[in-house]
Amino acid sequence: MSGNTFGKIFKITSFGESHGAGLGVVIDGCPSNIRLNLEQIQQELNRRRPGQSDLSSPRKEMDELQVISGLFEGRTTGAPLCFFIENKDAKSEDYKEWDQIYRPSHADYTYLQKYGLRDHRGSGRASARETINRVIGGAVAKQLLAEKGIQIFSYTEQIGHIKMQGSYVDYNWPLAFSNELNCPDSDSLQQMLQLIEKVKREGDSVGGTIKCVIQGCPAGLGEPVFEKMQALLGSAILSINACKGIDFGAGFDSLHMTGSSHNDLFNHSDEGIKTKTNHSGGIQGGISNGMDIVFRALFKPVATIAKAQNTIDQTGREVSFAGTGRHDPCVVPRAMVIVEAMAALVILDLYMENQAKKW
Amino acid sequence: MSGNTFGKIFKITSFGESHGAGLGVVIDGCPSNIRLNLEQIQQELNRRRPGQSDLSSPRKEMDELQVISGLFEGRTTGAPLCFFIENKDAKSEDYKEWDQIYRPSHADYTYLQKYGLRDHRGSGRASARETINRVIGGAVAKQLLAEKGIQIFSYTEQIGHIKMQGSYVDYNWPLAFSNELNCPDSDSLQQMLQLIEKVKREGDSVGGTIKCVIQGCPAGLGEPVFEKMQALLGSAILSINACKGIDFGAGFDSLHMTGSSHNDLFNHSDEGIKTKTNHSGGIQGGISNGMDIVFRALFKPVATIAKAQNTIDQTGREVSFAGTGRHDPCVVPRAMVIVEAMAALVILDLYMENQAKKW
Amino acid sequence: MSGNTFGKIFKITSFGESHGAGLGVVIDGCPSNIRLNLEQIQQELNRRRPGQSDLSSPRKEMDELQVISGLFEGRTTGAPLCFFIENKDAKSEDYKEWDQIYRPSHADYTYLQKYGLRDHRGSGRASARETINRVIGGAVAKQLLAEKGIQIFSYTEQIGHIKMQGSYVDYNWPLAFSNELNCPDSDSLQQMLQLIEKVKREGDSVGGTIKCVIQGCPAGLGEPVFEKMQALLGSAILSINACKGIDFGAGFDSLHMTGSSHNDLFNHSDEGIKTKTNHSGGIQGGISNGMDIVFRALFKPVATIAKAQNTIDQTGREVSFAGTGRHDPCVVPRAMVIVEAMAALVILDLYMENQAKKW
Amino acid sequence: MSGNTFGKIFKITSFGESHGAGLGVVIDGCPSNIRLNLEQIQQELNRRRPGQSDLSSPRKEMDELQVISGLFEGRTTGAPLCFFIENKDAKSEDYKEWDQIYRPSHADYTYLQKYGLRDHRGSGRASARETINRVIGGAVAKQLLAEKGIQIFSYTEQIGHIKMQGSYVDYNWPLAFSNELNCPDSDSLQQMLQLIEKVKREGDSVGGTIKCVIQGCPAGLGEPVFEKMQALLGSAILSINACKGIDFGAGFDSLHMTGSSHNDLFNHSDEGIKTKTNHSGGIQGGISNGMDIVFRALFKPVATIAKAQNTIDQTGREVSFAGTGRHDPCVVPRAMVIVEAMAALVILDLYMENQAKKW
Repeated sequence: MSGNTFGKIFKITSFGESHGAGLGVVIDGCPSNIRLNLEQIQQELNRRRPGQSDLSSPRKEMDELQVISGLFEGRTTGAPLCFFIENKDAKSEDYKEWDQIYRPSHADYTYLQKYGLRDHRGSGRASARETINRVIGGAVAKQLLAEKGIQIFSYTEQIGHIKMQGSYVDYNWPLAFSNELNCPDSDSLQQMLQLIEKVKREGDSVGGTIKCVIQGCPAGLGEPVFEKMQALLGSAILSINACKGIDFGAGFDSLHMTGSSHNDLFNHSDEGIKTKTNHSGGIQGGISNGMDIVFRALFKPVATIAKAQNTIDQTGREVSFAGTGRHDPCVVPRAMVIVEAMAALVILDLYMENQAKKW
Repeated sequence: MSGNTFGKIFKITSFGESHGAGLGVVIDGCPSNIRLNLEQIQQELNRRRPGQSDLSSPRKEMDELQVISGLFEGRTTGAPLCFFIENKDAKSEDYKEWDQIYRPSHADYTYLQKYGLRDHRGSGRASARETINRVIGGAVAKQLLAEKGIQIFSYTEQIGHIKMQGSYVDYNWPLAFSNELNCPDSDSLQQMLQLIEKVKREGDSVGGTIKCVIQGCPAGLGEPVFEKMQALLGSAILSINACKGIDFGAGFDSLHMTGSSHNDLFNHSDEGIKTKTNHSGGIQGGISNGMDIVFRALFKPVATIAKAQNTIDQTGREVSFAGTGRHDPCVVPRAMVIVEAMAALVILDLYMENQAKKW
Repeated sequence: MSGNTFGKIFKITSFGESHGAGLGVVIDGCPSNIRLNLEQIQQELNRRRPGQSDLSSPRKEMDELQVISGLFEGRTTGAPLCFFIENKDAKSEDYKEWDQIYRPSHADYTYLQKYGLRDHRGSGRASARETINRVIGGAVAKQLLAEKGIQIFSYTEQIGHIKMQGSYVDYNWPLAFSNELNCPDSDSLQQMLQLIEKVKREGDSVGGTIKCVIQGCPAGLGEPVFEKMQALLGSAILSINACKGIDFGAGFDSLHMTGSSHNDLFNHSDEGIKTKTNHSGGIQGGISNGMDIVFRALFKPVATIAKAQNTIDQTGREVSFAGTGRHDPCVVPRAMVIVEAMAALVILDLYMENQAKKW
Repeated sequence: MSGNTFGKIFKITSFGESHGAGLGVVIDGCPSNIRLNLEQIQQELNRRRPGQSDLSSPRKEMDELQVISGLFEGRTTGAPLCFFIENKDAKSEDYKEWDQIYRPSHADYTYLQKYGLRDHRGSGRASARETINRVIGGAVAKQLLAEKGIQIFSYTEQIGHIKMQGSYVDYNWPLAFSNELNCPDSDSLQQMLQLIEKVKREGDSVGGTIKCVIQGCPAGLGEPVFEKMQALLGSAILSINACKGIDFGAGFDSLHMTGSSHNDLFNHSDEGIKTKTNHSGGIQGGISNGMDIVFRALFKPVATIAKAQNTIDQTGREVSFAGTGRHDPCVVPRAMVIVEAMAALVILDLYMENQAKKW
């Protein structure tokens, strides 16, 4: 398995499995002499942690951040940072009975085809527990970006068919950050929560979308051609477990527009050059234009459900399978911090690349 | 500008501008001793070429393939392949009057912010003429994949609000490949063509979606974590000019499903292990599962339109701008071969990476 | 600090400091379903370990290998392997008094200039203790190469001015592998050991050269132009602490030859095509030719010595400095396994790259 | 063949063969809005050009620089630069009779083993004519470095057994830059020239060493661990055709020193912190220390000689071979500009990487 390193200048390398010793991340390329706020990293981890509420898996993990390397008296030394999170509540026996089964829409079959063996315990490396490493890397990236005035946040735009109406700019943000969906519209919020509860009761699951907003990003980030900002964000976000789609700005709604209504007209305001609308999602020609960068990530319904379904095992025999492990009825609440983390890694890397070429 | 190289083992490096000497691509990592079919590459270029029909820009370019290096007596030598296409019908004067204007939703403003100067002629490097290089690289990749039984094709699924109904598996494919939208449904086809004609008459433009299907891909391609197959395809497709979204399999439609209806159940057929449905789009855990790989690419309405719109120039003065160069009312017809090319590059690279690790 | 990842397909990422929690390495891209011999890895670590004899630093570390991830029931799963070695005998107080001093020919000054701060404890990341990670990565690589019939070994060719005469092919190898210099010539061995003892008594240090031989490497490995085999080996070997030079085959001795005496003439023997001499060191045009690959690595005298020398501290004040920590009078005995490890990583990566392109 | 791209941020991609259309280089990652001095690039190409004197191959090529992309009104646009040099005096017939022969110490055998076919014309991609691309890339890099006060030059230190005595700092530099060996010592120069003439008359060839000096490089460049400055320079220089060794600072002479004589003692001078000696060659812990960076590159005797030698052909039959093409008796005169170019690429890339991480 390759592909466990992300980034070009600020790079993270992820290791660990759901039911091994733990999860770890190496961060290479971090500027030196930066005082890291470890508590803030822990808070981001807490946003991702299971067992936080009725909406998420009951696995109990404290996910306590351990510093392995790269810090000296609280500051980055320029050496690779390594952080580690132990697995403490791994219940491998939950998975023992499935070790021969190809669970529907899981990675069991594909891993076995690819690797010739599989670590069946909690999906091994395919587990979303891997995303801990992204959250840590992203939390460090956010701290560096914040020093440059760049902020990243996200909210739940849709759960199943329940979609929040209107634009994020018109909403009540203190409300959003006090509920577990980061949803600023209290009506939509109630309906979304009810829907998640309903599918949970039915032993089923539901998908949703997350809107992510990057504010304060200067114009000029993104590399034309293959490393356009939307291409790198796309790669970053689509690498998150259960993510099956992404669009930018007006996105798929632009199918109902023409060029004349979709084009963002430039004007000169007191704050400098802006566009009147932001259908481009802050990116033009693959490069940030100084407006908010806005994209939407789609998460499919979770594959593991309590309802029994037919599938086959490794011998080809048909079997019935019902999930009994600890799983979420909807990944959206816990996925927001992961989406933000991946976005932070992309923006930081592009920022550093841009800085490299100032002459 | 970085980001002009794509791929890890089979790599293409793109150079050239819309109104310079021409466009060129260097392909590094191609297996040696392969007889390349140059005519087939030219045919792919012809699919992308402007001036082919009423639907596309009237710029007249033959886009004739020149071999610069890497072939000896018709076979790849293992040395880097270089192909070049001269610019012959570049009319830079068309653009002269705009050289100070920030065209709406174009890269003029962002390039100037990033680079401190800009080559205004035909958008310079930001021009979609750059995609010639991708088509050449993709055409070589397709030939290599075909030897392994892997085929890639695409069709127009939607133009503006006109959407083809049903699944691609039920359609009349000979029809599809004889029309310029590769649309297999003659009713939808007529409506789509009419819509494109209508927006063109109105001096406007329209967007659409392309569905791309990869057949014959073995199970096991894709690298978990950051280089999941959907992440790499996402990066590849979102790097195409005017592409603003992508989804895989059931994609955004999965918002109307639950886990129990979305899960693809495995069964054992005469052709081996298959899934009954393909909502996953052939990818599970980031790895191909042997089913068709299916994704949808969104293209926004073209930014350049004949209708006048207000914008500003580099001095901040408000000006009216109407496109007078040669542009398409809809990029979808010419974008299909580009989408296929980028998909081919991704699949080939993953194939080679997998092969590297067989022990 | 970047540059903590080595390799393209088989990649190692190194983390940890001399006086932090420990040293760790993540190996990404390892073929799956391979049974690793952990004892063999430990034996390689033991070859590098300090405190083994009078010739090396008295720091007492067991350097016991811990498996963190990537193994399931003894086999590689395809997930990233992570191994960790705790620091147990770190005596940071040894270094406390030096924390403001620029030790001569050490990295104190350059680290401070680069990073704006430095972890003075045992040189932090600049410590040769980092090479533990290379030895682990190389030990895994050696196991994979051995399955393909490729063997790597090394011996001490020179300590100070004492140089072993003749060619390695004529020597008594069982003798070599039973002494700590891997020196097959007992006369030279005695003189070398005496020289090391002498400089140690004098509170001084001495350099030397290591000859490394790669046997069984098939013809055809190495990528022309920038990734010639000698270029990649050069980069790998010169990245080892205290290494200041490398040459291949006849190397600097070729200054005393002409083309007619240096050229290796091909002939056809019972074992296939061979060259009569091997002045090329097994590499022609950057590609292995099937002969033994032979290179020589130069290690300078260790910078830390017990003899006092004048230098300055961070305030610019002149001070006298004498090393009191635990250091080797000569790095050669412990560096051999590191040289082999780095060579193994290069050869394995080239092997995998070659395999990727078979069509 | 991979490995045709060099660099991480400032990257060059090389293409073309000795006897194809020509040689070309794509430069990606160059800062924008830089006015390039094309004449200076041409002058560097002239230093490498054959047919300049009796010491070099009589192939007559003007090697005239063509700009293909990336410049607008004399300035870099941020788009990839592409430069091209046509092959005009390619005499493929010179090589026709050898197309089945494995020339001694050439890449004929290794290429055939690796690729399954070979372009025998002028060694195809294995020809040193490829180094044109490096010279162009390096010439651009030198211009960027010069703006930061960094200068790179080189001179011939040794031809065969004739070695220039003393240190470069004591020499007459105007003399050096007016002779084709850049040798500042007129006695050594005469002996070296006589030796080259002698081996040429005898139909033979001779090797030599080039000393390269980088002045004005700030302290702090180089990335610890795998991308130490000497590792990257090593990789760059050893990738040049016929280069078989490299050492830094005192290099192999340090075998005759101990730690106490080799250590460079820091002192505080009017010009800031310096070392009294420079046995480290300006690099400590893999990072530049602000002193001159000094290394020596070894070039073996040219393999193609007029003297007949025995070898075999592809059928295994023994044959006699004598070079009749156009070849140099010694590569050193033409290799200096290539060594400088590769060094410039490394230093520039490290400079940009460092700049990326300033926070």
